[in-house]
Amino acid sequence: MLVVKKFGGSSVANKERIFNVAKRCAEDYRNGNDVVVVLSAMGKTTDGLIAQAKEINPNPPKREMDMLLVTGEQMSVAYMAMAMASMGIPAVSLNAFQVAMHTSSAYTNARLKRIDTERIRNELDARKIVIVTGFQGVNRYDDFTTLGRGGSDTTAVALAAALHADSCEIYTDVEGVYTADPRIVPNARKMSEVTYDEMLEFASLGAKVLHNRSVEMAKKYGVQLVVRSSLNYAEGTVVKEETKMEKMIVSGVASDLNTARVSVIGVKDEPGIAFKLFHYLAAKNINIDIILQSVGRDGTKDISFTVPRTDLQETLEIIKEHKDVFTANSYESDEHVAKVSIIGAGMSSNPGVAAKMFEALYGADINIKMISTSEIRITVLIDENDVNRAMRAIHDKFDLGDD
Amino acid sequence: MLVVKKFGGSSVANKERIFNVAKRCAEDYRNGNDVVVVLSAMGKTTDGLIAQAKEINPNPPKREMDMLLVTGEQMSVAYMAMAMASMGIPAVSLNAFQVAMHTSSAYTNARLKRIDTERIRNELDARKIVIVTGFQGVNRYDDFTTLGRGGSDTTAVALAAALHADSCEIYTDVEGVYTADPRIVPNARKMSEVTYDEMLEFASLGAKVLHNRSVEMAKKYGVQLVVRSSLNYAEGTVVKEETKMEKMIVSGVASDLNTARVSVIGVKDEPGIAFKLFHYLAAKNINIDIILQSVGRDGTKDISFTVPRTDLQETLEIIKEHKDVFTANSYESDEHVAKVSIIGAGMSSNPGVAAKMFEALYGADINIKMISTSEIRITVLIDENDVNRAMRAIHDKFDLGDD
Repeated sequence: MLVVKKFGGSSVANKERIFNVAKRCAEDYRNGNDVVVVLSAMGKTTDGLIAQAKEINPNPPKREMDMLLVTGEQMSVAYMAMAMASMGIPAVSLNAFQVAMHTSSAYTNARLKRIDTERIRNELDARKIVIVTGFQGVNRYDDFTTLGRGGSDTTAVALAAALHADSCEIYTDVEGVYTADPRIVPNARKMSEVTYDEMLEFASLGAKVLHNRSVEMAKKYGVQLVVRSSLNYAEGTVVKEETKMEKMIVSGVASDLNTARVSVIGVKDEPGIAFKLFHYLAAKNINIDIILQSVGRDGTKDISFTVPRTDLQETLEIIKEHKDVFTANSYESDEHVAKVSIIGAGMSSNPGVAAKMFEALYGADINIKMISTSEIRITVLIDENDVNRAMRAIHDKFDLGDD
Repeated sequence: MLVVKKFGGSSVANKERIFNVAKRCAEDYRNGNDVVVVLSAMGKTTDGLIAQAKEINPNPPKREMDMLLVTGEQMSVAYMAMAMASMGIPAVSLNAFQVAMHTSSAYTNARLKRIDTERIRNELDARKIVIVTGFQGVNRYDDFTTLGRGGSDTTAVALAAALHADSCEIYTDVEGVYTADPRIVPNARKMSEVTYDEMLEFASLGAKVLHNRSVEMAKKYGVQLVVRSSLNYAEGTVVKEETKMEKMIVSGVASDLNTARVSVIGVKDEPGIAFKLFHYLAAKNINIDIILQSVGRDGTKDISFTVPRTDLQETLEIIKEHKDVFTANSYESDEHVAKVSIIGAGMSSNPGVAAKMFEALYGADINIKMISTSEIRITVLIDENDVNRAMRAIHDKFDLGDD
């Protein structure tokens, strides 16, 4: 078996945790497996480097930022190799140059393009544990790049794909993927399996177990992921293409508070208005989510949509600036809203799921402001104060919990 | 002009000092020069990394130690490039992989073998300041190595040689090389020039301005060095092959407290004894310095020599263990001694220099325990309590000071 194991920054934040990781990898190694370990920078190392850089230059060149940040993971992998050596386990650390991990040229947000596997294969053949820096790559100019958010997960999945690994294990501080956030829904159940598509929906709704980018890559290359805890030996959640036949129609419930509703009111009912509006927002990298357009009346209509709450101010400034282009009479916004979604691969072929969700909300006396659906997801926008009650009501209605 | 400028760890220890270095480099750059900057790790960074490594593994694999330590210089060069960018100076940082700096395989103590200059030349042609990590290299296994003590100076000299630089400036916290340590001899004078050979003698006697290794490389490749202060614009000391005609016979006086005298007493007066003794010490990498052998009498003789004080205990243990092989009756040691030397390229062709030195010591009522000479150096071993008086007496005798 060839296993790729990825541990995040908190899993290697200090000596004790480094040895905890080393021990888990040693177990796999001693059982005869080939082990590749992907590590992030220790604890708050990256934040510290960024803070120091900003002190020197509030707007540092991205190339130099990447040159700086990659030192964080390099320290992690060196320390890990030292820890393993002290346990008598042969190990070797490799950075992005040594692997090599080829990426696009975009500093601070590069895309992995190709991984040379020869060095890793040679080290594995010599029966060493190979410890690779996550999050980083090398571009065609022989410069370091970093992969942006979720980078280390992506490194692990890409390595698993390139090495045709039998398993790619992503270690976190939770035991897996749950039917709902256990802090909100006490009887939430850990799922044993979830499909790539379901995982993508969960991740986009703020369940921060895996970054979408790594799930997309896993799906593309058919890499089976296991999400599990670095603190115990509980079986995690397997993320794969298809799950068991006895699969639930709805897998889980997720919420997202990073959302705000914007309404542009009284725009002319003529072609091109919506295009212009969303074109200006896209140019500023603002993600539009749910869109609702009222039926035209008296030659005008209203367009409502949601944006990440963190982008609301910028969104309003853009609308203010281009109000005339949008032919809008006025605009308004509401940031005291939240999204609640049900997710499930079985949903598309099962009518009545939406009705059941709405019934649960009606039963809890919760008002729905907007609705959006996809093949495997139904999302409603509600008042943010109703979120926890809504999640519990829906979770109960679909009978997702333990017992 | 192509200038290589090297700054040590204390010169880049914080934001203010980083900007101080950036400004000095910017001046050269704006005057139309091509500028290559070699940096060490910031302040105590390397010590911190070593301490953390030893906590994880008291005896860490050397390969992993180098993988860890090279992150220190990489941070320095990235921060420096950011500082220059904030001043509007185009700059690019490069680590040992990117240059590339090829070394022997010996981790923690590698030798530089070859430097690829293409990348640096291209960046200089694009009118960028090139900031290179000192102290580090890459070996034939594509692994990081470090160059050991004096590594960053060596990097700077090697780059100057490979790039055929017009000047190689080594910045320190002193203004140059002095005729004696100004803390001991108040009227010591900064020398404007000194030869490679003189510099080598000064360095080996504890004047820690330049490491011998970098001076040897400078001599080998004819790289003219300038030792100067990073804190002011005083002209430094030029280190080169030959100095001016009006050169002093004696350039300076140096002392070294890291020495101890060992005597092996009553060894058989037959061939091979001295060989065996120094063979055992050499096998443990103990440097023998002054050697004095008494004339044989009654079929036995005494052998005295000096070793670094830090190696005294090990030396005595070796002698104790092999006492029979050395046919010694007994042995003794004295660690309250010190070396005082006069150094000067003009010495070899000027008889009477030694006599003048001994006269100075006699005048100060200082007893000489051992004597050693080379082409350009005369060293005496004296009581350590007499060192400062001896230095002042000699410095005066040869009229080396200001006024």
